[in-house]
Amino acid sequence: MSDNEKITLAHGGGGADAAELIDREIVSRFAGDALSGLPDASPLNLGGADLLFSTDSHVVQPLFFPGGDIGSLSVYGTVNDVSVAGGKPLFISLALIIEEGFPMRTLRKVLDSVAEAARECGVEIATGDTKVVGKGQCDQIYLNTAGIGLKTPALNLGKQRVAKGDAVLASGTIGDHGMAVLAAREKLPIENGPESDSASVWPLVEAAAEFEDAVKFLRDPTRGGVAAVTNEIVANTDVGILLNEAAIPVSRKTAGVAEILGLDILNVACEGRVLAVCAADAAEDLLAAWKSARGGNGAAIIGVVTDEPETVSLNTVSGGKRLVLPPAGELLPRIC
Amino acid sequence: MSDNEKITLAHGGGGADAAELIDREIVSRFAGDALSGLPDASPLNLGGADLLFSTDSHVVQPLFFPGGDIGSLSVYGTVNDVSVAGGKPLFISLALIIEEGFPMRTLRKVLDSVAEAARECGVEIATGDTKVVGKGQCDQIYLNTAGIGLKTPALNLGKQRVAKGDAVLASGTIGDHGMAVLAAREKLPIENGPESDSASVWPLVEAAAEFEDAVKFLRDPTRGGVAAVTNEIVANTDVGILLNEAAIPVSRKTAGVAEILGLDILNVACEGRVLAVCAADAAEDLLAAWKSARGGNGAAIIGVVTDEPETVSLNTVSGGKRLVLPPAGELLPRIC
Repeated sequence: MSDNEKITLAHGGGGADAAELIDREIVSRFAGDALSGLPDASPLNLGGADLLFSTDSHVVQPLFFPGGDIGSLSVYGTVNDVSVAGGKPLFISLALIIEEGFPMRTLRKVLDSVAEAARECGVEIATGDTKVVGKGQCDQIYLNTAGIGLKTPALNLGKQRVAKGDAVLASGTIGDHGMAVLAAREKLPIENGPESDSASVWPLVEAAAEFEDAVKFLRDPTRGGVAAVTNEIVANTDVGILLNEAAIPVSRKTAGVAEILGLDILNVACEGRVLAVCAADAAEDLLAAWKSARGGNGAAIIGVVTDEPETVSLNTVSGGKRLVLPPAGELLPRIC
Repeated sequence: MSDNEKITLAHGGGGADAAELIDREIVSRFAGDALSGLPDASPLNLGGADLLFSTDSHVVQPLFFPGGDIGSLSVYGTVNDVSVAGGKPLFISLALIIEEGFPMRTLRKVLDSVAEAARECGVEIATGDTKVVGKGQCDQIYLNTAGIGLKTPALNLGKQRVAKGDAVLASGTIGDHGMAVLAAREKLPIENGPESDSASVWPLVEAAAEFEDAVKFLRDPTRGGVAAVTNEIVANTDVGILLNEAAIPVSRKTAGVAEILGLDILNVACEGRVLAVCAADAAEDLLAAWKSARGGNGAAIIGVVTDEPETVSLNTVSGGKRLVLPPAGELLPRIC
């Protein structure tokens, strides 16, 4: 990165440019114990309590989309980051940046949605902040949440525990959130288009915790989708992942929009799904547990951990095999 | 507030409109135990630990101003909110919203400043997030921080403990931050203009903790300044505050800019000062302790608690007496 470089939309995506920015400019400056693993939520020990701490800003456009809105998304986003790190989310902060002239009526709708999602997740909005900036200095409203959760002792998560033969599970159809937002933003002339999967994944994490050590890694495939998360799992390890395209749950509506837009569904964000890596002998039981947990009825075993170092590949429905690369650039700006 | 109302810059200020928005639209929706006191930082008990949790977004313009910049300000802002609630700040999150095209060189300067301020405050950047929005969807860069601190057991703070005869102290000159930012933004043709007081107030809070129960209330007078904080203290109580104008420390440079702009210095924000209310018999000792603590050499006893319910007044240097009202509207947008 030269000194004349400028920030691009790709620096905010889930791909290689974003990873480079974060590694070189953020982690290099701030890496302490908590940040060093670069997880979505950081483990902290404070006054004897084992906590998880996470933050996310939300700049999604449009503010309201099929299946969700910026308010509930801001709650779920942080609740989910804390959850997949093995923490039961308990408190979140809410900071608003609002553009001058934003309708009070719309603000109320957004805040109602925050409140409803928080109630549903059992988290308390503990503290907040409100800033107003001038016309043209923000696009309607941006929401930041930070969340604190209490570590679930049963879970012992870490990608260093992932081993050849482990199973890879998805908790439901993938890519619905990204395609729902994009279809709404582009005003695609689709009837009954895709609906965002935006939801809390805590019930799925709680169900996974019953399997204790057999569950090795959990992550919500948000920006960069399944491609980003699977590549993150195998990066700097001696294992790989082989995905089975036929087994990956994709809704017909979402697949249709992805095809119209020429997008690889593996790169498209979810906001209410979890990927899990678990020991092979626990995979069927975890699958059954997820199928009966809230939000998990579409769960599936989608792949297996291999001994091909740092390689994610896909057995395609047409019988071929291809590499799944970490998404580069920013295909889908402002979907969260 | 009618349903056709729109958000104005005043809703983001430290005055009456902001208070009304927060009361009616935020607290009414979210008030749980933690939020109910409306403090800048909320007390949480988590896993047996007594914590303080706070958040602030920073949208200051210009990004760099005499005495500080948006990076260090984002650290101090949250560190100070946790500190004045009686918490030793330990971990903060850092979430960036960056406008496409923002120079990498400037981003590096901002992040360097965040890192230096965090080191100086002894807080760890534990988790983060980066979003990029398009040109014209943000004004350069906005930073959000959330902070977690551990409660200092010696302090027992609460405005319900404030009683007639208590002393009101300020830790140093007031209004420097607001005037420094405004002078820089308006490019006032001033040589050697005011410098922001932007700094951590934790050393001052730590010094105050030595006085235990004698210290009754601490707050950093940010948006809305001393007028907002003193009115907040007396609101819904049976006490008032009488300030002594001659005793209030104001730097010559800051007073000059306030005069040019026709602003009441009592409404202007600090970002590195504390107001304390303490028992009269501890006031001189707290003053001495502050004068020898970092950032407190300009401390002064500026007023006394009276039995005039909910009334803040000022004995002026000219021998008169006037009311000090909570600031209405937003006189100084985007100073933090």
